[in-house]
Amino acid sequence: MRPTKTYHVRAQLSADYEVVRTDNILDLASEELVNQGRQPGNHAQRRFIVLDQAVDAIYGKSIRAYFDHHRVECRFLVLPGGEHRKVMDSVVAVATALDSFGIDRRREPVISIGGGVLLDLVGVATALYRRGVPHLRVPTTLIGLVDASIGVKTGINHGDHKNRLGTFQPPTAVLLDRRFLASLPERHLRNGVAEMIKLAIVRDERLFELLEEDGDRLVEERFQGRSPAGERVASEVLHRSVEGMLAELEPNLWERHLDRLVDFGHSVGPTIEMLAGGDLLHGESVAIDMAMFTTVAARRGLLHDKDARRILELLHRFALPVDHALLDDDVVRRAMADTVRHRDGRQRLPVPVGIGRAVVLNDVTQDELRSALRHNRAEGVR
Amino acid sequence: MRPTKTYHVRAQLSADYEVVRTDNILDLASEELVNQGRQPGNHAQRRFIVLDQAVDAIYGKSIRAYFDHHRVECRFLVLPGGEHRKVMDSVVAVATALDSFGIDRRREPVISIGGGVLLDLVGVATALYRRGVPHLRVPTTLIGLVDASIGVKTGINHGDHKNRLGTFQPPTAVLLDRRFLASLPERHLRNGVAEMIKLAIVRDERLFELLEEDGDRLVEERFQGRSPAGERVASEVLHRSVEGMLAELEPNLWERHLDRLVDFGHSVGPTIEMLAGGDLLHGESVAIDMAMFTTVAARRGLLHDKDARRILELLHRFALPVDHALLDDDVVRRAMADTVRHRDGRQRLPVPVGIGRAVVLNDVTQDELRSALRHNRAEGVR
Repeated sequence: MRPTKTYHVRAQLSADYEVVRTDNILDLASEELVNQGRQPGNHAQRRFIVLDQAVDAIYGKSIRAYFDHHRVECRFLVLPGGEHRKVMDSVVAVATALDSFGIDRRREPVISIGGGVLLDLVGVATALYRRGVPHLRVPTTLIGLVDASIGVKTGINHGDHKNRLGTFQPPTAVLLDRRFLASLPERHLRNGVAEMIKLAIVRDERLFELLEEDGDRLVEERFQGRSPAGERVASEVLHRSVEGMLAELEPNLWERHLDRLVDFGHSVGPTIEMLAGGDLLHGESVAIDMAMFTTVAARRGLLHDKDARRILELLHRFALPVDHALLDDDVVRRAMADTVRHRDGRQRLPVPVGIGRAVVLNDVTQDELRSALRHNRAEGVR
Repeated sequence: MRPTKTYHVRAQLSADYEVVRTDNILDLASEELVNQGRQPGNHAQRRFIVLDQAVDAIYGKSIRAYFDHHRVECRFLVLPGGEHRKVMDSVVAVATALDSFGIDRRREPVISIGGGVLLDLVGVATALYRRGVPHLRVPTTLIGLVDASIGVKTGINHGDHKNRLGTFQPPTAVLLDRRFLASLPERHLRNGVAEMIKLAIVRDERLFELLEEDGDRLVEERFQGRSPAGERVASEVLHRSVEGMLAELEPNLWERHLDRLVDFGHSVGPTIEMLAGGDLLHGESVAIDMAMFTTVAARRGLLHDKDARRILELLHRFALPVDHALLDDDVVRRAMADTVRHRDGRQRLPVPVGIGRAVVLNDVTQDELRSALRHNRAEGVR
């Protein structure tokens, strides 16, 4: 006899947050940065703020002046950047600093100002601290603005694996201020453009055309709108990138479904990025991956050759790589094995079938990948 | 001019899991342990199983025989127990072992078999690994059965702080098998009874009476139902404990509301537990805390003296402490400061106003706490 009694537990969690695209949040007259979590009345405001070292060097003074002006008592934690610092030790260091600050559980949002690496790792720390304290994200890189900051993913690397540990944790809010891009090194701008190109390929032909037509101007003006035409296109590509990304993410915020078009560029890319160490930025590894699967699609006849050429041309246009010395058959095999585990036993490979349209494949062979690799290697030597 | 564009992100996450109270899950004829996550057809089953060292010593052979019998390919990770092992290093060790096993993201639930410490820390590891892999929990202690395993909390200690890092992560399922209690040391049984008493005080007078009437028999028979009367009462107290706990948790699974009756016993308790090192079990620190706030309530006139006496008597009856040498005014002050931060700026102290009824107070003074401490110290020396 095995008497059994079953209790069912069912509950719903709501995520609800705002992504605000704005300008000049460090202007003393702006209240966006202090308004999040502000308590009514004369309650003294306190904030714990994590800064990327590179951001601190350029904007540290303005940031401190801003919070002084708004009479917020701040504790700053400055962390060095770089993918190799995106590890558990850094998360634990943030937690220890939060302990010493003595943060309230709900009404004192942690503010992080930096690139994707900083936002991702502070995201893990705030997700874990007291099982979640609020987190206001302020990205300062293009990839942060259009990709890393606006969804609910947090992550750190573990062993050889990119973002192997993390959470889905909705932020309190995200403030997108393109003024930070004025000081961003050009390579990092192009790094962010790679994620825009990804989104353009899988869902937004118009965005693709804007990047084709005005890409040079965007990079030259650093998305600052220094000319009227530059302002128009910067504003439109940022809008389409953010809106399109959120449209892909929102219906599947916790990744219940693993067939995701936004995974285009992220099938073998993360493995190459980790292998290359600091040699490849994230968007660069995404570009290599996109080139590979674009060629796979073209060789299957799913994508017109002229569209495949447009895609590869656009990557070249932004000086994004389509190949890497470390990429070989064995690396591709290992990357695919890990990706299949990550996608629960299936390949779920997004590939373009036009500009702005993609499908998901589950039957790509190692031969096809090998031959796409060879093809792009030959092309890459132009 | 500060042009602003706001994007709203809204989504709903469902939690849905079963807590199954059953018997003899290691019986070869039982399928409950292998059925979770079982793939249709001839798909080879693989499982990653984490065992507490003490569980492995007693049940390791039966567990291996069970999975062999069901032709499941298993990798075992055996971890030493103890609150001091409930730290980030152990979480990282689990993640590394999961990497080397190469677990699929969704269809190979990690199984953990052990006490609250093991379940809590494997809970953190599975919540973080690939941003969440499924986790089947099998508690082997009484506190695990009625408290640690059945909700969605995971946690590890950090610095001096109990469960300072963790997540809310619904398990895949929880299997409650009281047969494991047959080998549980008596002190650990009493440790679990403390959480039952807590629940009884805040919401279930009948459970309180059952513990008063048949507590000795329960401990003597280790909840195994060795006599017909013992079977009846063991079954009823386990049912009331699990059902009552879930009824408290389910409407507030992610702790959006911080006024929680189940926090009774957890206001100064966790600080004393951490201070005492291995000297106090969790339920013992809960008992000390309950005694303190029972006295606070009685001295305010919120609770009849006779009910306060019944509560303290019941704690004595189960040889649970109502005081500890390290507990002094300063410790209480520090504990309260941290609790107020954890409860977002308010005390939110649950106190009993009868047997089976509690309210939440926000205006308890340091004087009241000091005097309750003195009163219980005098009482405790009986």
